[in-house]
Amino acid sequence: MKKITNAKILTLDGNCDITDGEIHIKGDSIYYIGKPKDGEFDEVIDVGGSLVMPSFKNAHTHSAMTFLRSYADDLSLSEWLNNQVFPMEAKLSGEDIYAFTKLAVLEYLSSGVTACFDMYFYLDDFVRAVTDCGFKSVICSSINDFGGTPQSVEEEYLKYRDISPLVSYRLGIHAEYTTRLETIKAIASLCRKYGEGFWSHNSETGDEVKGCIKRYGKTPTELFDSLGAYEYGGGGFHCVHLSDNDVEIFKRRGLWAVTNAGSNTKLASGVADICRLLKSGVKLAVGTDGAASNNALDMFREMFLITGLQKLKYGDASACAADEVLKAATVGSARAMGLFDCDVLAVGKKADIVVIDLDKPNMRPLNNILKNIVYSGSKQNIKLTMINGRVLYREGKYYLSESESNIYARAEELAQRLKSK
Amino acid sequence: MKKITNAKILTLDGNCDITDGEIHIKGDSIYYIGKPKDGEFDEVIDVGGSLVMPSFKNAHTHSAMTFLRSYADDLSLSEWLNNQVFPMEAKLSGEDIYAFTKLAVLEYLSSGVTACFDMYFYLDDFVRAVTDCGFKSVICSSINDFGGTPQSVEEEYLKYRDISPLVSYRLGIHAEYTTRLETIKAIASLCRKYGEGFWSHNSETGDEVKGCIKRYGKTPTELFDSLGAYEYGGGGFHCVHLSDNDVEIFKRRGLWAVTNAGSNTKLASGVADICRLLKSGVKLAVGTDGAASNNALDMFREMFLITGLQKLKYGDASACAADEVLKAATVGSARAMGLFDCDVLAVGKKADIVVIDLDKPNMRPLNNILKNIVYSGSKQNIKLTMINGRVLYREGKYYLSESESNIYARAEELAQRLKSK
Repeated sequence: MKKITNAKILTLDGNCDITDGEIHIKGDSIYYIGKPKDGEFDEVIDVGGSLVMPSFKNAHTHSAMTFLRSYADDLSLSEWLNNQVFPMEAKLSGEDIYAFTKLAVLEYLSSGVTACFDMYFYLDDFVRAVTDCGFKSVICSSINDFGGTPQSVEEEYLKYRDISPLVSYRLGIHAEYTTRLETIKAIASLCRKYGEGFWSHNSETGDEVKGCIKRYGKTPTELFDSLGAYEYGGGGFHCVHLSDNDVEIFKRRGLWAVTNAGSNTKLASGVADICRLLKSGVKLAVGTDGAASNNALDMFREMFLITGLQKLKYGDASACAADEVLKAATVGSARAMGLFDCDVLAVGKKADIVVIDLDKPNMRPLNNILKNIVYSGSKQNIKLTMINGRVLYREGKYYLSESESNIYARAEELAQRLKSK
Repeated sequence: MKKITNAKILTLDGNCDITDGEIHIKGDSIYYIGKPKDGEFDEVIDVGGSLVMPSFKNAHTHSAMTFLRSYADDLSLSEWLNNQVFPMEAKLSGEDIYAFTKLAVLEYLSSGVTACFDMYFYLDDFVRAVTDCGFKSVICSSINDFGGTPQSVEEEYLKYRDISPLVSYRLGIHAEYTTRLETIKAIASLCRKYGEGFWSHNSETGDEVKGCIKRYGKTPTELFDSLGAYEYGGGGFHCVHLSDNDVEIFKRRGLWAVTNAGSNTKLASGVADICRLLKSGVKLAVGTDGAASNNALDMFREMFLITGLQKLKYGDASACAADEVLKAATVGSARAMGLFDCDVLAVGKKADIVVIDLDKPNMRPLNNILKNIVYSGSKQNIKLTMINGRVLYREGKYYLSESESNIYARAEELAQRLKSK
């Protein structure tokens, strides 16, 4: 048994209270949370008064896109996507995916992220990369007119949904604008067959919504709903340009809105109306999107942007309070991904935990720790990241089967090779 | 003599080229930049392939306001200022200023910032705090109707302008809306007497500009200019709501626009039109503002926000390229503050240097190091911060006369005491 002691504990299990105490971990799960108590411990982790809380979960990303970080910035969206991203992606191999995903995992761990909801290709290599690291992930099918068939998606679903305690799979499509109607219908039908939610990029740009309305007389959300895709829930990535009726559908179907503030900012896609979503009772989760668009996989940056952009949007410094954002980036994201066994800190939950170092200047004084995390927190405050009871990152050091210098070197080599191909 | 070796070097001296080499430092100044060369060195700092560049300078802040970090967030601006900030500030003593300024210095150093342009009170205690740390600062007079007289400002100017190699002083006022006309005139006259630029908060909020127009039929910039305040240049903090004519005055007078994106976001003040400023040839510098409004003193967050908010404002992912922002946060801010002897890396310049760790996942691959710094960089990448040739921060450790744990404890104690006063 393991013990995390000398901690301030924010369980996020129903409230935002912080209490002093310790956490005992048996195997991969939380065994005890409370006042110091005797026991037999193989390992004692004294966090010296730091804050222990549920880890962040990244509810929308394309992990392997790290290779395109700062490859083609400061370009218009269409120039970036069509002339830079797509041609480079066409050259990728499974070996690349393995290396670039591992690079992303290093970044996630340094940001306190323990799981990602990932949409990309070469799934075997992706799964190998995350499981080799001991990192959790939920794959989202990315079928579109350029790759995949309903049959291949069903095969993937059956193959990956229970492939490892670390990996699962959710059904969906890349996006309306990249996917023909019959394919969308077929995936909607798969969702009903298996009682699964339906996921996709949704209303990321104004043009996407306009195009969909032109094609179908409906917004993407209305279209998917009309096809019965949301019978078992699901959600959308980005959700920047939702109509009132879209929000109503999200609410009625219990869909998750996954917000991606960094990517939407960097690619000038717009500002999602988080205040309206929260007011309407829509469930909120947070993702970084891939490093090609963001360019960082940094939950602290996301959290500040989410609340900050609402304050600007509404011209109201009191808009979008910090605690809602923190819950969305942790508990919300976990539940959106179906990871109900590691959403909060509670006895019996998996020990997916992050320790926030309060002995850093940006956390002082301790007027309000929760607001500090959202408004002044940074990756420098990540003291420890734990997945299923295993410490994978602590005090700037990684505990993985491959050294980080190897991962950097391999990713560098492969990225340069792709550029010269 | 000291040597920084095994480095990638970005001098920002006229261009953004990065070359491999080393830097030799004699006393407080740069003695040599170039290919490896023999010499007698007391200390060799092998940075293992990291990037060495000019440090960040924080061109607008109120350092000691760290004590109000996360004290009163998610409130409207007027509620925050009138009911929370002002009553707390009224209780401050010099002892508080000393402790809270030191807390800010810790945060600056961890963000690669080596100097700040500071506007607050209890200047003796402020000066003692920064010089005890070996940190550079430029004081800006903060006279307004609640404190200071033109005579006291002149005395301060003469006392602090050359008080230490680390400290200097610039003339200005807090803001138009807090300062009566005769006082503004008197400070403008002081600026002319001493050949100094005129500084102030300027057009931070829409209401501020509206109020000024109502009072004087002029914007703050027009008013100050009409009073002859800008005869020797100077600049404005925030510059969110500038008119076309204001921008024209900034350009004609060679004024510095100091942008504060984090604070303007958090307090919902608006988005400064950086693209228009740059296009008009206005000189740009970057500040964090104080921790009460921002709430972080983090140059990486500022840089991403500056460019990101322009992309959103213009709906154009190519707006406000990264290199302009990086130059503004380093060279621009230094020059705005009058620190011409530490603006870039060049022989003879003061050794105010930051080392950016490229062996962190958010910096890989090295497709474009400069864009990585702005778009995915974070305080985690600050490997070393040096002022006047002295290492003050390295690999997460501080090298100050007082331990950081003492500084945290003292700041915590005093902040709690203020709250209960």
